Amino acid sequence: MTTEEQVLERIERARRRKARVREELVTLAHGAGGKATRTLIEAVFLEAFRNPLLEPLADGAVAGGLAFTTDSYVVTPLFFPGGDIGDLAVNGTVNDLAMCGARPSYLSAAFILEEGFPIADLRRITATMAAAARAAGVDIVTGDTKVVQRGKADGCYITTAGVGTVAPEVRLSASACEPGDAVIVSGPIGEHGVTVMLARGELDIEADLVSDTAPLNGLTAALLDACDAGQVRCLRDATRGGVATVLNEMAEASGTAMILDEDAIPVRPAVRGACELLGIDPLYVACEGRMVAVVGGRSAGAAMEALRGHPLGAGAAVIGRVGEDPPGLVLLRTAFGGTRIVDVLVGDPLPRIC
Amino acid sequence: MTTEEQVLERIERARRRKARVREELVTLAHGAGGKATRTLIEAVFLEAFRNPLLEPLADGAVAGGLAFTTDSYVVTPLFFPGGDIGDLAVNGTVNDLAMCGARPSYLSAAFILEEGFPIADLRRITATMAAAARAAGVDIVTGDTKVVQRGKADGCYITTAGVGTVAPEVRLSASACEPGDAVIVSGPIGEHGVTVMLARGELDIEADLVSDTAPLNGLTAALLDACDAGQVRCLRDATRGGVATVLNEMAEASGTAMILDEDAIPVRPAVRGACELLGIDPLYVACEGRMVAVVGGRSAGAAMEALRGHPLGAGAAVIGRVGEDPPGLVLLRTAFGGTRIVDVLVGDPLPRIC
Repeated sequence: MTTEEQVLERIERARRRKARVREELVTLAHGAGGKATRTLIEAVFLEAFRNPLLEPLADGAVAGGLAFTTDSYVVTPLFFPGGDIGDLAVNGTVNDLAMCGARPSYLSAAFILEEGFPIADLRRITATMAAAARAAGVDIVTGDTKVVQRGKADGCYITTAGVGTVAPEVRLSASACEPGDAVIVSGPIGEHGVTVMLARGELDIEADLVSDTAPLNGLTAALLDACDAGQVRCLRDATRGGVATVLNEMAEASGTAMILDEDAIPVRPAVRGACELLGIDPLYVACEGRMVAVVGGRSAGAAMEALRGHPLGAGAAVIGRVGEDPPGLVLLRTAFGGTRIVDVLVGDPLPRIC
Repeated sequence: MTTEEQVLERIERARRRKARVREELVTLAHGAGGKATRTLIEAVFLEAFRNPLLEPLADGAVAGGLAFTTDSYVVTPLFFPGGDIGDLAVNGTVNDLAMCGARPSYLSAAFILEEGFPIADLRRITATMAAAARAAGVDIVTGDTKVVQRGKADGCYITTAGVGTVAPEVRLSASACEPGDAVIVSGPIGEHGVTVMLARGELDIEADLVSDTAPLNGLTAALLDACDAGQVRCLRDATRGGVATVLNEMAEASGTAMILDEDAIPVRPAVRGACELLGIDPLYVACEGRMVAVVGGRSAGAAMEALRGHPLGAGAAVIGRVGEDPPGLVLLRTAFGGTRIVDVLVGDPLPRIC
C-alpha cells in the first residue's frame, strides 16, 4: 500500500467513526493500549458510560479544578530492575494526574492478592509504594484489600486512583495541537518495556537496563511554569503503546500531522539492540517515566530549557513538529531520507508491561 | 471461657495494640473483612503508608470537604440474582462515599479482564454499571483496562474509586459513638452474601432471595437532613464481615459497648434458614445495600422516621443501644434471655462475596 492509499484508508476509517468490537472474546491486544484497546474503550465503555468528562478519553478527567484518574497494574514479573509493581502503581497514577496539568494530592490503593502470596513480598511492594509516594509528594489515604483463591490472580494486582488540583489557566488537550508546535520527548524511550520484557528471563538477551519508572509531576510543573499560558498544548506519558500510540491519538484528535525525525528520537543503544532482537520498534515500547509534550513554537526553547534543567528531563529532545498534512497521521522521516507512516499499535508485542 | 475472661482477654489484646501478621502467606481470611484483614491492613498497609487521613481506616478519606474512596470487586459468580459485579462495583463505592457523609460526584472504573472473557458479558456488566451510576446520580468519568492471560484472573475484576463532597458540618467517626446512642440497621441483613453463596450452586439449598445491592446516598442524605447536627455519629455499610464486624470496629474505636437485642435484628426467614444450613450467623454476612447508623438518642426518633420514609430504609430497625460496659465489645441479648459476646469475624466463611 502506498502512503497515499494509507492516508485515504485512514481518513475513511475516521469517517466510519463508530467503533465496533469485532471479536467475541477479550484478547491480550485489548489490553495493549493500541488500536484494539481504543476500539474496546469507545465501543463498550464510552458507549455505556458516555458523559462530557469521559468523552475526551484522556489520562484523567478534569472538572472544577479537580483532576481524577485511575489505573490497574498487572505487570509481570512483579519485581524488575529499577522498580516493582509498587512504585509503578504510584508513579503511573501520579503521572496521569501530571499529564492533566494537575498537582497530585491524594492516592488510593486497592490490592487484589492471590491466596498464598508471600507477606514478605507484599511488604517489599508497600515499602516501594511508600517511597514513591514520598518522592512524588502525595499521600496514600484510602485503600482496599481483596484475596482470591490460588490460580485466580498472578500474585498481586494493584489499582491506584488519584486526585489532584488543576490551576484554572491550565487547559491541556490532545485536540489543542497546532501546526508549528514542537513535539518533545522528555528522555530516551522504551527503557521500561524492554527492562520488564528481559526480566521475564524468557529471552536469551542480557542488557544493562533499568526501568525508567519515575514521578513526572515535578517535571510537568517546571514545564508549565516556564512556558507562556496556553503554549503547552498537550502532555501524555508514553506508557502502553509507546510514543507512537500517544502521537497517533494527538494527531487524530487535533486533525494535524505529527512529523518526526528518526535521528532526533533518543533511544539508548541497549534498548535499540534489544528491540532489534525482539523485532519491535522502540516507538511502540512503554516508558513509565517519559512524556511527550507538544508545545507552541514560541515557547519551545523555554520548554526545552526547563525540561533539561530537571533531573528527569536531562535527556529531553525535540523529535519533530506538528504539521498540517496528512491530517491525523504520524510520519517518520527516516535516517535514510525516506518517509514512513507510524501507525497505531496493532496486537500486543509486550503484554503486561504495566 | 466466661464472658468476663473474654473481656479481659480483649482488653489485653487492645493493650498490645501493635498488629502483627503471623502468617507468612496471604490467606483467604486476609480478604474476608474481619480480624485477619484488619491485622494485615494495620501491620502492612498502615505501617507503610501512615498519614493522618489514612489512620482512621474508615470507608474513605475525608479532607478539605472532599471524600475519596476505592474498592476492588472480585465477586463470584459475576452475575447473581438481583445484580452483578457491575452494579456492585458502582453501589459499593457510592456507599463508601455516602458512609463518609459525602455526596458522591465522580467514579472511576478500572477493569482487569481475563483473556477469553466474553465481550457480551462485558457489555452486560457495563450496562448495569451505567444504570447503577444513573440511579446514584454519579458519572463514571475515567477508567482503565488491563488484560491478563487465561488462568491469571477469574473473568473480570473491577476496581472503582469515587470522589464526593462533604458538607462542613458533617463529621462522622467510629470514635464518636456515645453511651445512650441508638444502633440502627437500615433493613433486613445478610441478603447479598447468602444470595451470592447460593448462586454458586455448590449447595443444595434453594431460596427466594435477591441481593440487596443498592446505592445508599439518597438514604444517608435523608438521614443527615432529618437529624440535629452532630447527632449522626457514624455510618457504615455492612459489607464483608457483616453487621457484627462493623459494630466491633465502632465499639473498639469509641471505647463503648454495643448492646444488641437479638429479637430486634431484622433477618428474612430465607436468610435465616440458609444461614442455619450453612452454619453461619447472619450478623457476619455481607449486605451491599444496608447500613449501620449510630445516632444520638435525641435524634433517634427523627432518624427512624427519615429512614422508614425512604424506599431503601423501609425495613429499618433499632437493634440496640450504645452502652458503657464492657468497653470495646459487642454484646447480644439473645431471644432466650442470655447474653453472648459477638466477636470480630475470624476466618472466611463466605469468600469473594463482593
